[in-house]
Amino acid sequence: MKTMNKIPITAYKPDGFVRRYQELISKEMIPYQYRVLSNQEPDVEKSNVIANFINAGKALRGEEHDDFYGMVFQDSDAGKFIEAAAYSITNFPNKELEVKIDEFIDLIEAAQEEDGYLNTRFTIKDKNRRWQNLLEAHELYSAGHMIEGACAYYEATGKRKFLNVMEKNVEHIYNKFIVEKAEGYPGHPEIELALMKMYRLTNNKHCLELAQHFIDVRGVDPHFYEKERRSRDWHIWGNNPSNYEYQQSHMPVREMSDAVGHSVRATYLYTGMADVASETSDKELFNACRRLWDSIVNKRMYITGGIGSSHHGEAFTTDYDLPNDTAYAETCASIALIFFASRMLENEIKGEYADIMDLAFYNTVLSGIQIDGKRFFYANPLEAIPGVSGRIPTHGHARITRPGWYGCACCPPNAARLIASIGQYSYSEKDDTAFCHMYASGDVEFKNGIKLNCKTEYPYGDTVDYKINGNGKIAIRITSWSEKYSVIKNGQTVCSENINGYIYIPVCDNDEIKLTLDMTPRFVYASEKVADLTGKVAVCVGPMTYCFEGVDNDGDVFSLYVNTNETPIVEAYDENTLGGTRKIRVKGFKKEAQSGLYSSKAPKYIETDIIGIPYSLWANRGENQMRVWMNEK
Amino acid sequence: MKTMNKIPITAYKPDGFVRRYQELISKEMIPYQYRVLSNQEPDVEKSNVIANFINAGKALRGEEHDDFYGMVFQDSDAGKFIEAAAYSITNFPNKELEVKIDEFIDLIEAAQEEDGYLNTRFTIKDKNRRWQNLLEAHELYSAGHMIEGACAYYEATGKRKFLNVMEKNVEHIYNKFIVEKAEGYPGHPEIELALMKMYRLTNNKHCLELAQHFIDVRGVDPHFYEKERRSRDWHIWGNNPSNYEYQQSHMPVREMSDAVGHSVRATYLYTGMADVASETSDKELFNACRRLWDSIVNKRMYITGGIGSSHHGEAFTTDYDLPNDTAYAETCASIALIFFASRMLENEIKGEYADIMDLAFYNTVLSGIQIDGKRFFYANPLEAIPGVSGRIPTHGHARITRPGWYGCACCPPNAARLIASIGQYSYSEKDDTAFCHMYASGDVEFKNGIKLNCKTEYPYGDTVDYKINGNGKIAIRITSWSEKYSVIKNGQTVCSENINGYIYIPVCDNDEIKLTLDMTPRFVYASEKVADLTGKVAVCVGPMTYCFEGVDNDGDVFSLYVNTNETPIVEAYDENTLGGTRKIRVKGFKKEAQSGLYSSKAPKYIETDIIGIPYSLWANRGENQMRVWMNEK
Repeated sequence: MKTMNKIPITAYKPDGFVRRYQELISKEMIPYQYRVLSNQEPDVEKSNVIANFINAGKALRGEEHDDFYGMVFQDSDAGKFIEAAAYSITNFPNKELEVKIDEFIDLIEAAQEEDGYLNTRFTIKDKNRRWQNLLEAHELYSAGHMIEGACAYYEATGKRKFLNVMEKNVEHIYNKFIVEKAEGYPGHPEIELALMKMYRLTNNKHCLELAQHFIDVRGVDPHFYEKERRSRDWHIWGNNPSNYEYQQSHMPVREMSDAVGHSVRATYLYTGMADVASETSDKELFNACRRLWDSIVNKRMYITGGIGSSHHGEAFTTDYDLPNDTAYAETCASIALIFFASRMLENEIKGEYADIMDLAFYNTVLSGIQIDGKRFFYANPLEAIPGVSGRIPTHGHARITRPGWYGCACCPPNAARLIASIGQYSYSEKDDTAFCHMYASGDVEFKNGIKLNCKTEYPYGDTVDYKINGNGKIAIRITSWSEKYSVIKNGQTVCSENINGYIYIPVCDNDEIKLTLDMTPRFVYASEKVADLTGKVAVCVGPMTYCFEGVDNDGDVFSLYVNTNETPIVEAYDENTLGGTRKIRVKGFKKEAQSGLYSSKAPKYIETDIIGIPYSLWANRGENQMRVWMNEK
Repeated sequence: MKTMNKIPITAYKPDGFVRRYQELISKEMIPYQYRVLSNQEPDVEKSNVIANFINAGKALRGEEHDDFYGMVFQDSDAGKFIEAAAYSITNFPNKELEVKIDEFIDLIEAAQEEDGYLNTRFTIKDKNRRWQNLLEAHELYSAGHMIEGACAYYEATGKRKFLNVMEKNVEHIYNKFIVEKAEGYPGHPEIELALMKMYRLTNNKHCLELAQHFIDVRGVDPHFYEKERRSRDWHIWGNNPSNYEYQQSHMPVREMSDAVGHSVRATYLYTGMADVASETSDKELFNACRRLWDSIVNKRMYITGGIGSSHHGEAFTTDYDLPNDTAYAETCASIALIFFASRMLENEIKGEYADIMDLAFYNTVLSGIQIDGKRFFYANPLEAIPGVSGRIPTHGHARITRPGWYGCACCPPNAARLIASIGQYSYSEKDDTAFCHMYASGDVEFKNGIKLNCKTEYPYGDTVDYKINGNGKIAIRITSWSEKYSVIKNGQTVCSENINGYIYIPVCDNDEIKLTLDMTPRFVYASEKVADLTGKVAVCVGPMTYCFEGVDNDGDVFSLYVNTNETPIVEAYDENTLGGTRKIRVKGFKKEAQSGLYSSKAPKYIETDIIGIPYSLWANRGENQMRVWMNEK
């Protein structure tokens, strides 16, 4: 049953921490990504996204054209870019950018085939191979991202052209899979959640029906991809169609319990499942989502909100396998986890979902982006070893500094669209209740008439001040890591019960509410079931996991031991440190350098202070050691 | 300059610990391997080694025959098997086995081509592709093992047929590479050390010349394999000819400093280099060996004597990269390290070489073999995680129990031949000096007239008793881990200087010498440069590294912490424990089970005893946790 609705993208005006990141998206990332997509940025992996649409249009008109360039899912970058830009211009209007997007949308429209099909790769070079390779060709995945982009641009600007294009495309897909009953389901889930977005925006029942269909048929015939493979004489990468878990064909979705396979495919799927479950009150489907959620957050998630431990298949592996230095923890997977969490919240209001949104956002999503907004991590390891990380084959994926772009460039535009729309994850509403999930500074106008101003230094400050206009209730999330907290309304302590992580407070005009959380730095210990984390301790402050870099610690964090008998101290926020942050200072010991690889001489330890920074800000100062989980002493 | 000579294989009669293992080789491994090689052992990977020789002979005679089966280097298993069997029958005569080997040698002889070429794969199926693919085809590698087998069988039995065959084969290779000046060098080094063995046995100068040639030309043209690849239209696996380090083509050998590439290829090469250096007094070559030695033992070796950290290319990686759970540490690589160490000893008499022979032998070589002699490890990880080790892709190679055989079966026969000939590594001689490197119980007859009886429980006992017959000197190695030791001759303390790890003692008839070492268990710490080993401690007793298995510790060693303030206690030797061993008991703490994946509740610890066994004996009691490096508290 649907518990709440997102606020419109235009309903939130950011301030504070969120505004700073959204400004970075607006000023740096979006223009940078446009330059990359239009092949104007030197010294990065070539993108060619816009040129692909131009060439597809030319191909349709029978004009001379260049070949398609890039990954088979290159179009998805167009969808994600427009989506991010659309969100961005709602708060940072940019007429010049809007003109560019409108022109781009014209190119997209011109690249759509008459029957509604839209995919530059197959229009340019493989017209007769449409829909033959659901395993690898990503046609439904790319369509999904384009649908999301179209919805966002319509929401942000009221302009309907792109949405029209994509509605026509959805109708084409509907005809293919529902009317003509084509077999199969997306090799890379994504369209399910996109269709649900379009359904909520347009109320087009075909969207819901199609999303439900793809979810219902998945895994019912686990051998579908093998049959498909046998039916065609071509492939893209030669993916193994029997790699059931990788492509989520291993069982019907309602039977799933363990989070397995490619972590982004998996979590996009779970998001679509949760979307459909809330819209259709499908209990069985929701129960599967709940089991999968538990599998992720209780057994397969890093303390940074990273998921997918292994670069082999970019995948979940098994319970409690969470290596630090070889972690994959793709930026996109944490974004997908936030999507999943937000949809779980729409099924049941529980603070744990918002906790994970916070965790993934303030750690792995933000660590995906360099502070200048121009370089990006794909994998987000929890330990960096100079000479090893990013260098030797076992650690090739675990880069120690962010590259400028990727041949497979899913992460940068994904982070941009998430950050630019974080207001929609922070606030939602149901009837007369305004929900405050993440503490996003700024102004919000709910459809139910409540207007709210939120002021906070969160994730650095421990207080959140709300000023209310209108009447109704506000539901404020209490974080699970803050055992102590207080809620004060107009100077009076609110004693409302904490119901599943939320305090519900009746409000009327001019009410002022102050939430105070316990942001005392805390040591965090991992279950002894995680072999790699035994004997280790991490430090968290509020939603932020901290890390320790060589550059703050005489070049060497591996010889440091944290003294957990002494409480860590948070230093003052300094806007000149790493674009604005605060360090922590932890008491500890440094092992004196040992001579020889192995020695039976007992090591000597010297007391020392150990300096940490938020994990999200690591690798902004060149190659150096980094460690989240420190040795304890 | 050659410092000493090996003793003949027949000069040592084993007793005690060595005898126990050599008996296992004789009674279990050799018959088992014969059954495997002749396809008589059910439920293991098919070998077909003997059938390949039969079919090659038939092919040569123009008879109908089956196809070649197995790896391109399948013949090498014949060489290693005969070598192991030859050593074995010197101390455990076995007429039936000898008959089988003689019959096998007849088959080998019949499989040799007229011009001396001998390789069943190319004789059976690719006659016209001989010597076209040094990169992958392993013709020189297989020949090397066959040469070693032939030398051993001649040494053990005086029978010359196999040696004749291989001398003819060497002459064929000599013609090819020296007379006809064929370009290139072995893709997998091995023949260099084999040729040096044959040279020492037969004094055939072509052997020395050929070994020198292969060493001298290696890497001088690093692009040789690329040219070779371009010159042929076929391949075996499609190895990348530009993978210079992998195949040791990256630079001329005299310029090498870092141990890189496939660890067995590398260390076989270094062995051959050290062989040639000692025979030819090639200082420059020896200096390269010394740099490579330092690179291995000071920066790239596990505490178990394992080398080659990564399963990617079965290779050395970079300094201080020594992960535990994903360690490759191939059994063959530790065997190669013993070879290399023994040849370094022939260049300069330093105890450090014998220390590493001990370390590799008593830990990784012996861990390669199940105590019943019938199952074998290829990779020897230092941590086993049930559900992860051997299961998920990053850990697929790191099996948690020993398989019965391997498609690529290099390790089992390699371990057999090493163990069966360990006397030759334990003792050597030069002029009137008898060297005692490893403390191998038994009787030795040196060519210089000294006869020696060695009695010891080593590696379990701390005393070694020598009884001497004859006159001269004996040089007894003092282990580096034993800071305290005493040497008593006929009741009198010997005060001779420890010269590079050896005590030189004049002896005459009936002298009795007792060496006492300090076998107190010791904690060992790793350099802080090894990221994976920070905060960890290992326990060693004498040459043995200990490990901790779940089966001895309530199923869970990951939650255990060693208390390094309390000295570990060695339990009594028990011949019924794991085929005869002794456990250790270490004081420590057990972390109480934590609820949840992450918790900010400070963990509770309960005092507990922790039980360890020698690393070499792990995985003999089913799947369970194992850890060498324990958390310290």
